[in-house]
Amino acid sequence: MTVTHLTSAARTRRGVLATLLGDRPALIPAGTARGRNYPGNPYPYRASSHFLYFVGLSLPGAALWLDGDDQRLLLPESDPLDALWHAPAVSEELLATTGLRMGNIARLQTLAQGRAVACPPLLSGSDRQRFAALLGRATADLGHREDVDAALLEAIISLRLRHDQAAQGELRRAAQASVCAHQQGMQATRPGLLERDIVATMESVFTREGFSTAYGSIVTTRGEVLHNHEHGGLLASGDLLLADVGAESDTGYASDITRTWPVSGQFSATQREIYTLVLEAQCAAIDRVRPGIRYRDVHMAAARVLTAGLVDLGIFEGAVDGLLERGCHALFMPHGIGHLLGLDVHDMEDLGDRAGYAPGRQRAAQFGLSYLRLDRDLLAGMAVTIEPGFYQVPLLRAKPELVGLDLRALNVTRLSQFADVRGIRIEDDVLVTEAGHEVLTEALVKSPDAVEQLMAKRARASE
Amino acid sequence: MTVTHLTSAARTRRGVLATLLGDRPALIPAGTARGRNYPGNPYPYRASSHFLYFVGLSLPGAALWLDGDDQRLLLPESDPLDALWHAPAVSEELLATTGLRMGNIARLQTLAQGRAVACPPLLSGSDRQRFAALLGRATADLGHREDVDAALLEAIISLRLRHDQAAQGELRRAAQASVCAHQQGMQATRPGLLERDIVATMESVFTREGFSTAYGSIVTTRGEVLHNHEHGGLLASGDLLLADVGAESDTGYASDITRTWPVSGQFSATQREIYTLVLEAQCAAIDRVRPGIRYRDVHMAAARVLTAGLVDLGIFEGAVDGLLERGCHALFMPHGIGHLLGLDVHDMEDLGDRAGYAPGRQRAAQFGLSYLRLDRDLLAGMAVTIEPGFYQVPLLRAKPELVGLDLRALNVTRLSQFADVRGIRIEDDVLVTEAGHEVLTEALVKSPDAVEQLMAKRARASE
Repeated sequence: MTVTHLTSAARTRRGVLATLLGDRPALIPAGTARGRNYPGNPYPYRASSHFLYFVGLSLPGAALWLDGDDQRLLLPESDPLDALWHAPAVSEELLATTGLRMGNIARLQTLAQGRAVACPPLLSGSDRQRFAALLGRATADLGHREDVDAALLEAIISLRLRHDQAAQGELRRAAQASVCAHQQGMQATRPGLLERDIVATMESVFTREGFSTAYGSIVTTRGEVLHNHEHGGLLASGDLLLADVGAESDTGYASDITRTWPVSGQFSATQREIYTLVLEAQCAAIDRVRPGIRYRDVHMAAARVLTAGLVDLGIFEGAVDGLLERGCHALFMPHGIGHLLGLDVHDMEDLGDRAGYAPGRQRAAQFGLSYLRLDRDLLAGMAVTIEPGFYQVPLLRAKPELVGLDLRALNVTRLSQFADVRGIRIEDDVLVTEAGHEVLTEALVKSPDAVEQLMAKRARASE
Repeated sequence: MTVTHLTSAARTRRGVLATLLGDRPALIPAGTARGRNYPGNPYPYRASSHFLYFVGLSLPGAALWLDGDDQRLLLPESDPLDALWHAPAVSEELLATTGLRMGNIARLQTLAQGRAVACPPLLSGSDRQRFAALLGRATADLGHREDVDAALLEAIISLRLRHDQAAQGELRRAAQASVCAHQQGMQATRPGLLERDIVATMESVFTREGFSTAYGSIVTTRGEVLHNHEHGGLLASGDLLLADVGAESDTGYASDITRTWPVSGQFSATQREIYTLVLEAQCAAIDRVRPGIRYRDVHMAAARVLTAGLVDLGIFEGAVDGLLERGCHALFMPHGIGHLLGLDVHDMEDLGDRAGYAPGRQRAAQFGLSYLRLDRDLLAGMAVTIEPGFYQVPLLRAKPELVGLDLRALNVTRLSQFADVRGIRIEDDVLVTEAGHEVLTEALVKSPDAVEQLMAKRARASE
């Protein structure tokens, strides 16, 4: 996959978008770099996913103008001294592969001619002000979430929901880099190191391969804090290490993998029991993935396996159906089974639930299900994560009434025997295909035996 | 140095600030996390340097309220479910070491009681809007650069210009981490690798030690592009690798080191000649650093050594004084000799030249000197970088008229013999002391022989 494949794919995507929009002009800005502690010291630049999708290149400060066949790449004014300080974002040759006419962004108002211009939500307040000014709009703000054009968003969603061949290739590349990082992470783990030693090992795989992180890496022995970005903890022999680490390609495509492995290289009996249960839940969910299946049913399939397993283990008491209906499993798995994956790790989350929820569907009120990010019927070309988990969250035990959890079915004594399981999550990236599905991250070990064997190899090598 | 040392230092700093401000209340926000591609996927959080300075802790969304003796840490509304998703930013115990009263940020308008509130520039448009709303201000924007309180800024500058003991300790820690990264970078370099392999080696030192990068790492064989953040280039045997990589401590303090080393492990004769000249210029500049010296004179001392050396090498023809006066050296060193260093790598650059330039002084018009970021008389406790360089910038050769460069003194034939020197920079961090100065980054090799010896050790070890 080369970058020019993506500019070629982007051209096709623009053709569809133009048809869907008719005579309504659209503006899709790339976004500008944002200062970290002062304007001249920016965070690593990352273009907007909508821009990446329809242009195929990362161009700070640029914008795509799309008005039927009149499609232009609007570039910011350049300073003749730029070449002294900066390498060009892309070469002239690569720019030419977009097939777009080049224009100056200062001409935006002339292009718009006073017409309403559709624009996706813009992340940065400064960008919203900048483009409002460039369009000569009275309001000093453009692209607020409340102020977006429904027709544009529906058109974007209809395109980005199903990944074309170019996108699928990029998702595979990102998945492969993440697989490699997780393998090295497992093999680098040993008692006495810190969590951040494993972060360094895993993220340096990305840097060496030309990837970045698709989201803040979670590498923690305190897996029960769902988005724990602290990395200072010591790895002790009885701990499980939960690593939710995913690569992003230089073209913007994400991967999202979680594995949980024992610091010592060997699961305890209790860890192995719960791990195996989470894995069974994951396999049951992945098995269901195919076109036409409702994603919420995939979620419920995992929840059922989890609930039944917890009854078998004696942690819950009662009938599976009733427990499931009351959402009791959310004590241990408060989040949804997964989400869309694409140019964003939660793909198109900037559009709110408009992308994740089919028209007419909305979030459930019940705790747990309320965190489900996706409720559509699956279509070939969609990519989703499947990521069940088991966590012992002190807050939910201490204050179940806060979220309406009914814990009467919980066998507290039995659960106390699993105290060495703080948090387990197993997550893979799955592409829906015409025939069913393809697990993009299949190359990464996940059975308890396979994880232990991979970790043992390293231990032997370093003896 | 522990974090509680910093909350203790911050308390002292607040006392001085309150005295300087009199009865004028000030608001110093920490800033909120900023989305990378959507709001829920933020860049790594980094609190504002002003907040870090006066509180000593990183607390997303918080703000310091300072009104004489009434000093409060205003915290954002917390969601009872936060503990499910996130680890607390800091522990209650650590929060208590600030000695601040805790308050709710929603009470800001009540605290202000309609008085004018001084506020430093806020980086994020969303934060500017948020605090304007919290204060009930008619304008939807607070803390724009044009809208800041001069008395507050002068007070902050007078404090932050001279580093107290706590700050000096943190600058030393950051310098030490950077020294270690550069040593490992040199030893990891060999032909056939990519620039990003060295980035991975150097940055993983920071991750392992609990540091982050203070700015986007520059690791490039194309040193002539001054801020080249591309890392895809191949390391070839005759290349020089320029690495401008600095750590930031978890308390926010920066370091900023550049070294330039030969990919092969051995400088060519021409590379060694220019490298030695740049090093001589650096030593001459560092030698001058002491209280009472004007920083621009430090810059000119380096420029003089560089110019004289280029005359000796036959690259320039003519009298040193005249060449220097006409700014001819800016063809090869277009930037200034360095800048303030502290919580920001260009310390307080968010305040524009107000921090870097003493009252009554302003940027020179002449190309080269116009990029000098600091023109103050040095004071004990200031930290500065000293970073002369030599670059062959095609743009400046091709279009000298663009910047008013006079190239008549250039011996083009002689210069063409130095084609294997694209860019060299040597940069250290220097603390001004009562007695003169302390080079914080002294432990890092820089003579050509020492660099070659360090690189040879690795080569031998891997044989």
